[in-house]
This record gives sequence, C-alpha cells and structure tokens, in this order.
Amino acid sequence: SPDILLNLTLHQLHFLSSEYFQVSAPHRSVLLTGLPQHQNGMYGLQHSVHHFQSFYNVKSLPVILRNNGVYTGIIGKYHVAPRSVYDFDYFKTGPIQQVGRNITYMRQLVRTFLQNAKEKDTPFFLYIAFFDTHRGSWNPEDQRKNGPFLNLWGDGGQGHGRIPDWEPHVYDPDKVLVPYFLPDTRAAREDIAAMYTSFNRMDQGIGLFMEELKASGHLDDTLVMFTADNGIPFPNAKTNLYEPGQGEPMMISSPLHTESWGKVGVSRAGKEGVCKSDRFGSTMDFTPTILDWFGVKYPSYNLNGVEARLTGKSLLPLLDNPSDPRFDHVFSSHDFHEVTMAYPMRVMRDDRYRLIHNLNYRAAYPLATDLYGCPTFQDILHRTTTGQPTHWFKTLDQYYYRDEWELYDLQADPEELHNLAYNPDYHHVFAKMNKTLFSWQEETNDHWRCMPHSILLGGQCHDMHNHE
Amino acid sequence: SPDILLNLTLHQLHFLSSEYFQVSAPHRSVLLTGLPQHQNGMYGLQHSVHHFQSFYNVKSLPVILRNNGVYTGIIGKYHVAPRSVYDFDYFKTGPIQQVGRNITYMRQLVRTFLQNAKEKDTPFFLYIAFFDTHRGSWNPEDQRKNGPFLNLWGDGGQGHGRIPDWEPHVYDPDKVLVPYFLPDTRAAREDIAAMYTSFNRMDQGIGLFMEELKASGHLDDTLVMFTADNGIPFPNAKTNLYEPGQGEPMMISSPLHTESWGKVGVSRAGKEGVCKSDRFGSTMDFTPTILDWFGVKYPSYNLNGVEARLTGKSLLPLLDNPSDPRFDHVFSSHDFHEVTMAYPMRVMRDDRYRLIHNLNYRAAYPLATDLYGCPTFQDILHRTTTGQPTHWFKTLDQYYYRDEWELYDLQADPEELHNLAYNPDYHHVFAKMNKTLFSWQEETNDHWRCMPHSILLGGQCHDMHNHE
Ligand SMILES: [Ca+2]
Ligand SMILES: [Ca+2]
Ligand SMILES: [Mg+2]
Ligand SMILES: [Mg+2]
Repeated sequence: SPDILLNLTLHQLHFLSSEYFQVSAPHRSVLLTGLPQHQNGMYGLQHSVHHFQSFYNVKSLPVILRNNGVYTGIIGKYHVAPRSVYDFDYFKTGPIQQVGRNITYMRQLVRTFLQNAKEKDTPFFLYIAFFDTHRGSWNPEDQRKNGPFLNLWGDGGQGHGRIPDWEPHVYDPDKVLVPYFLPDTRAAREDIAAMYTSFNRMDQGIGLFMEELKASGHLDDTLVMFTADNGIPFPNAKTNLYEPGQGEPMMISSPLHTESWGKVGVSRAGKEGVCKSDRFGSTMDFTPTILDWFGVKYPSYNLNGVEARLTGKSLLPLLDNPSDPRFDHVFSSHDFHEVTMAYPMRVMRDDRYRLIHNLNYRAAYPLATDLYGCPTFQDILHRTTTGQPTHWFKTLDQYYYRDEWELYDLQADPEELHNLAYNPDYHHVFAKMNKTLFSWQEETNDHWRCMPHSILLGGQCHDMHNHE
Repeated sequence: SPDILLNLTLHQLHFLSSEYFQVSAPHRSVLLTGLPQHQNGMYGLQHSVHHFQSFYNVKSLPVILRNNGVYTGIIGKYHVAPRSVYDFDYFKTGPIQQVGRNITYMRQLVRTFLQNAKEKDTPFFLYIAFFDTHRGSWNPEDQRKNGPFLNLWGDGGQGHGRIPDWEPHVYDPDKVLVPYFLPDTRAAREDIAAMYTSFNRMDQGIGLFMEELKASGHLDDTLVMFTADNGIPFPNAKTNLYEPGQGEPMMISSPLHTESWGKVGVSRAGKEGVCKSDRFGSTMDFTPTILDWFGVKYPSYNLNGVEARLTGKSLLPLLDNPSDPRFDHVFSSHDFHEVTMAYPMRVMRDDRYRLIHNLNYRAAYPLATDLYGCPTFQDILHRTTTGQPTHWFKTLDQYYYRDEWELYDLQADPEELHNLAYNPDYHHVFAKMNKTLFSWQEETNDHWRCMPHSILLGGQCHDMHNHE
C-alpha cells in the first residue's frame, strides 16, 4: 500500500531492500543483543505482571557501542530489562504515547539527540521505537473514543488533542486491502483502515526525522535501518510465526549505495523493483550489521556456562550483492508473549518451506489480550458462536489446535493450510530442516530444545516416554 | 521415622504442632512475603536460565522487620531475587553446600549472628535455609561418588571430606518406610535410605543451632518455626500438589508454651500426641505469624495496580487452641519449576477434599531434572520401557496425563486415585470449593485465574471458546 507509506518507500533516502524478517518475542532484546530470546533471557513481555528480563551479564549493542566511543540514544518504547544491560546515553522512553506516537515531540527529541552528538563530536547510534502501529486499549469505549489504533489521538478532533506536524489521513474501509488471513468483513475493514492511519502517522514521523538528519549534515554518512517487531496485530499474524507473523518489512538505506535512493522498494512477494532482494535477513542480524558498520569486534562471552556468540550475520554484503546466497534461511524462537501464554515455538524458514515446532501443541493456542479484544477477532468469535459464516480462511478450532510439527510449501501453499510434516513424501525436507534448526538451538544454548518429549540433562536429550 | 529426626521431635524446644502445609513454588518467596508466587512475581526458579524474580516493589518480611528495628539474617540457600526486595542485614548464602549442609560451618555462622544481635541489643530474625534434603547432582557418576543426596559428602570417607560435628548415620534400605506413592523396589529403598541420612544431618544441625540459641540466653524468648519447601524429591511428591507434595511438616516451638516442650509431635495422619493439631497452616502464614510475634503492622500496598494484602493468618492463636476452626483449609499455587516447565496448578485442600485445577492439563506433566535423574524414577522408566512390573501405584501415562480438574476424597481415597471432579454426586463439593478457590485467586490478583478457557480483561473473564 504505497499510498500510506510515502516516506518509507519514496523518501530520497529510502531504501535498498524490503525483506522477510524474523520476529522474536520480545523482538527488542534480539535486535539489541544479536541473541535469540531463549539465549538472552527476555523470554516474554517486560512490563506489568509478565516481568521477564535478560540475564545480567548480557552484552547489548548500545553498551558495546558506548564502550567504543559511540554516542547512543533511545527515543520511544523501551520494554526491555534490566537497565544495566540495555543502557543508552540519551534515554527518552516516556510518556509512552508522547515518545511513541507524537511525531512532533519525537522530532524535537531527534533534533536534541543529533545536537548532542554534534557537541560531543562522536559517531552516534539512535534507536527510535515507535509505539505506532501498536493497538490502543482493548476497552471498547476507549476504542470508540480514540480509535482501535489510537488513530484519532492527536488528530485535532474534539477531546483528541493535536499533533502539530501530523496531517491525519483517513482511509476508506471499502478500499483497504484485506489480506488472505483476515475475513473480508465490515469489522475487519474498519480495523484495517484504522491501522492504515497509524501506519501513515509513523511514516510522516520518519519523514520528519529524515529532515532532521539532513539538517544535521549527516544524511551522507548515516546507515538507516527499519523493521517491525511482529506481524500486524490481527489473528494469524502477531504472536504467530506463520508468514504474516514471521515475515516483517526490513529496509536499509546506505549512504554508500545512493544509486538506490528514491527508488521504490517492493516486498519479495510483490512486483519487480531495483531495490528488491529475495534473500532473508533476521532481527538477529541487526547487531552484527551495526557493529560491522562501526568496525567494532563482535562480542563473545560466557552466558549460563556456555559461550554466547552472534549467530546472525552482517547484512552489509547484501547491499552490494542482493542475491548473496548465504542469506537463504532464517530462524525464529518464541516462548511467551504474556507470562500466562506459554506457547514455545521454534521455526525455520527457507526460500521454499517453513517448519514450525509447537512445543505446547496439545494446549489451545493462547490469545494476547489486544488480539482477543480487537474488533476483527471479536467479530470472528461472535460469528462462530452464533453460527454465522465467518468469512475467515480457518475455523477457530483449526486456529487454536495445532499439530506438534507444521511444514508448509510456501510456493504451492502460500496460505499455509496444508501441513506436510506428517507426509512421507516430505520426510527428507522435514528431516533436513529439523536438523538445521536443532543445530542452531544447540549453538544458542536453547534450554527448550529437548521439549516436549525429552529433557535436557548434561547437554543431551533424555527421553521422557510421554508419547501417548 | 522418629529415629532420623531426634532433634526435630525430641529436643527440649520442639515442637507444638506438626501440620500440613502449602508448598508454593518457589516457596521461599511466599514464606518471605506472605504473598502467593502468582502475586509476588517469583513464578519459578531463580537461578540459571530460569531467572524469575519478584516485583521490585514487593515488601518482604526481613525488610519490614529491619524497618521496625529487628536485626535480620539469612544462613543457607537464598534462591530469590531481587536482592533489593529480599535483603537481610547478615547475609551468608554461599558456598551453597557449606552454608546448606556443613552443619559445623552453619553453627559458627549462627553463633556469629547471635553475637551480632547481642552487641546491637535488638530483637532478631534468623532465617536458616538448609540445602539438605535437596538431591545432589543428577549425574550418575556424581551420585556414585557422593550419594544421591550428597549423603556421603563430609562423612570422612575417601575423598568426601569431613564435617566435624556430624555423626553420619547410615540406614538399612531393607528397613526404610516406603510410602504408598513410591514403588517398593531396591532402587527406591536405597534412594530413601540415602535421603534419611540427609534428613539426619539436617536434624543434627538443628540440635547444634538450638544449643547456640540456648548459649546466647534466648531459649526462653525465641519463637522457632520449621517447615520444608516441597514434598520429598520423588515422583508424585516434589513439584506435584497431591498430598505428598502439598502436605509438608510444620512445627512451631513457642517459649510461651513450654508445657509442650520435649513432647513428641505427630503428623495429622499419624498417632495421637499432646502436640498434635489437626488444623491447616500454610507457607503464607509465616509472614503474618512473625509480624504478629513482633507486634508489627501487616503491610498493604499497591502491586500491579491492585492492593496487595496478606491473605494468610497468624498461627499464634493455634498455639492456644490447636482446634481453632478458622484454620480449616489452605490454598496452593504453582506456575513453573524450571522455566521450561509451564504447568500452572491452583489447589484448595480442606479437612476432607483436595481440588486441583491443572491449567495446562492437555500437555504431559513436565519433569524436573532432579526428579527425572533420580534412581527411583530411572527405575520406573526402565521397568516401563522394558515391560517389567513397576510396583508403582500409577502408570507413567496416568502420571503424565491429568484431568483438567481433580477432586479427591482424602478420607475414602487417601492415595488420590479416584477423581470425583466429573462425578455428578460431588458437584456441590466441586462447585463450593471452586468458588472459594476462585475468590482467593481474585483477592490475590492471580493473572492465571481465567485460564485456560477464557482470558482476563478488565478484571473479568472473557470466554475464548476453545473447548473442543
Ligand atoms: Ca509488539
Ligand atoms: Ca526445593
Ligand atoms: Mg503489546
Ligand atoms: Mg531444585
């Protein structure tokens, strides 16, 4: 939908590639450490009763950069812990709506950060974490007042306040694109239209920040990277690791590759474009990429008795060779969203197949509060319980109850409805991917790697004989 | 087995009552806060990759006591976090075997603590956390060397070192009592005999500490309480909340009730005795009891947006009236042992019935590494897979796969083999206990209380329609 992301796709700085990306929960810890969540300890949400946190001796990107003379900053949502691990010199993480959706306020913070860096005369690393396009409150009354994506907040309407630099765009529900994994209903269309406005507010903010970067004189020597932390907050996407959950936008703008500036990047599923890459990057690649950019050595240290090394790769080689064959697969790892939602999954995706291991497959897939409360899901629930057609591509039962292993041929079955994991014709595919996935789990000290049918003791899996 | 617990049962200070006790995982946080684990945030093990911790603003017993002029100390296993919440003036928590099994070293620490208290001339609170009777390493070679309970460690044998004050007792496997929930096999008998030695080492340690207390002149004005943090480390007990897991020894020696000193306390399931109480105490009662003893006001504060109050009761009234009718039921709450072992349970036990709600009941019951590796369980596994009789009271399948709800009549069915939860004749019992349990979950801000079939939103449960 290029009309809602003008700055992201057309701004003169944007973007080399648009790419499939790992989502790891919580993604932020993975981006900032280069280690999967099962290795860095940030197994689920940080806030409130969830209260997950990384291990005290994890080495994060901002701390490594600071130790190498780089001025570091965060503007926006923090959502990691502890502060000693995830520390930044410039730390503006609240109030959350102001630093995450008020693009005028955020622009001022960006300006201050860049001025500070100029005064210090050091290289800088700025991490901007929008709260857009997260949903607002699950509460129906709040949703009526401010829109399901807080898309009315700051639009100048009665009781909404006004974000001075924002030109609110309203989208026609009849004209939005309804992806295959959502029902084509009035409820879903209105929900998607509200999300478009949230997308567009973020996009306008990015435009403002790029102006600040230009004004600071650093347009020509700054690497800009963009991604999202999970699939869109709709069923089958956010918290899931099917394609709409694992596949995220990823864009890089490099000042060493100005020939691609101003060209429209397209998704690998989409149309041709000069900026296209059909390779796979991962959230785990951010830390190695940025360390590579600054010429800083990769960390390697003892974590829970095992050597922790970055298993991601620098993406910079992809800028010269968008077909670099080394980027042919990615892994994802998920244990919790909310602490009540234990549903560990381990995933490998290559250019043809996706393999998912659901460790708590016997239980119903758990629902995040924001996904349960969203208008689209409420409509699916209501239609299911009243016996009306849902217009959805799955039944609720299919959505809740999953096989232990899922293997999909994304070429023949892009909607991932035909599980091949138990099909003997695909045994070689399954076995090969499973072996690669398990090797990565071993390499990253994944304590879930023997679950659910065996137990990890002395580095080996021991059978529990709990197959029914 | 009075012969292995002479000091616990016969020492002149011991003990008013021997009682059934809640085990909450991790129990230590419950004992030290008066809040169940689901409320204080210590949802599972603290060490290594598990990494659970309580909320930063929880008010713990030692910190409340310190703020009221009491000198506080810990000797032994810590296993809670963060330190800011669980802080003690005198802090001796390692090396773990030395402060948890070396009774000579522990005695010296007790002496130092009591001398410090004397110099400060303040009341004191000392928390002694034995590592006995925890198992040693799961590793078979370590078990051969030091015994499965480190029962050979410090016994003066080749390579074992020697604990000067310990007179090691060795028990004859042929003469140990094999409880109904363990198989009467050679493997189990040897395992139990090793545990007896560990019991006895702890018991001798308690005798030494009581001598120190006497020497300090505080025998006549000190309240002494004893309990265990979980059932014995055998199947159906530790990590479980059946009777052998929820029911723990609990003894109190009060200097205001010297008439019971030197009398043998007996368990509620056992024979008559002057020290007996047939009422129920809970780990959650320790904090209110000790605050009551010191005349300190109970805490009440905001925790995750809800008022946190102690839901346990002071046990001191039981010392005057061992039949106090208010102590007629207890609750237990378990979410995790190891972080990979998500198996939340909520339990209510009254003088007739036990009700268990298994939230992840569809999954196999997970095994702790020490329970998997123990000789008794390895023998059960081996016998099961080779088709030999296990001599166990359950099959592995029964043990792994549990009903969502379990209701047992402990009078008619003390071994808890006949689930009445789905028996219409017991619907009134089920409904009444479920209501009482749920009220307590609401009162303690239990975020799991709507699981597994609904979701907590705005303080209410909303149906997920995930019943198959
Ligand atoms: Ca998110
Ligand atoms: Ca324990
Ligand atoms: Mg969220
Ligand atoms: Mg243990």
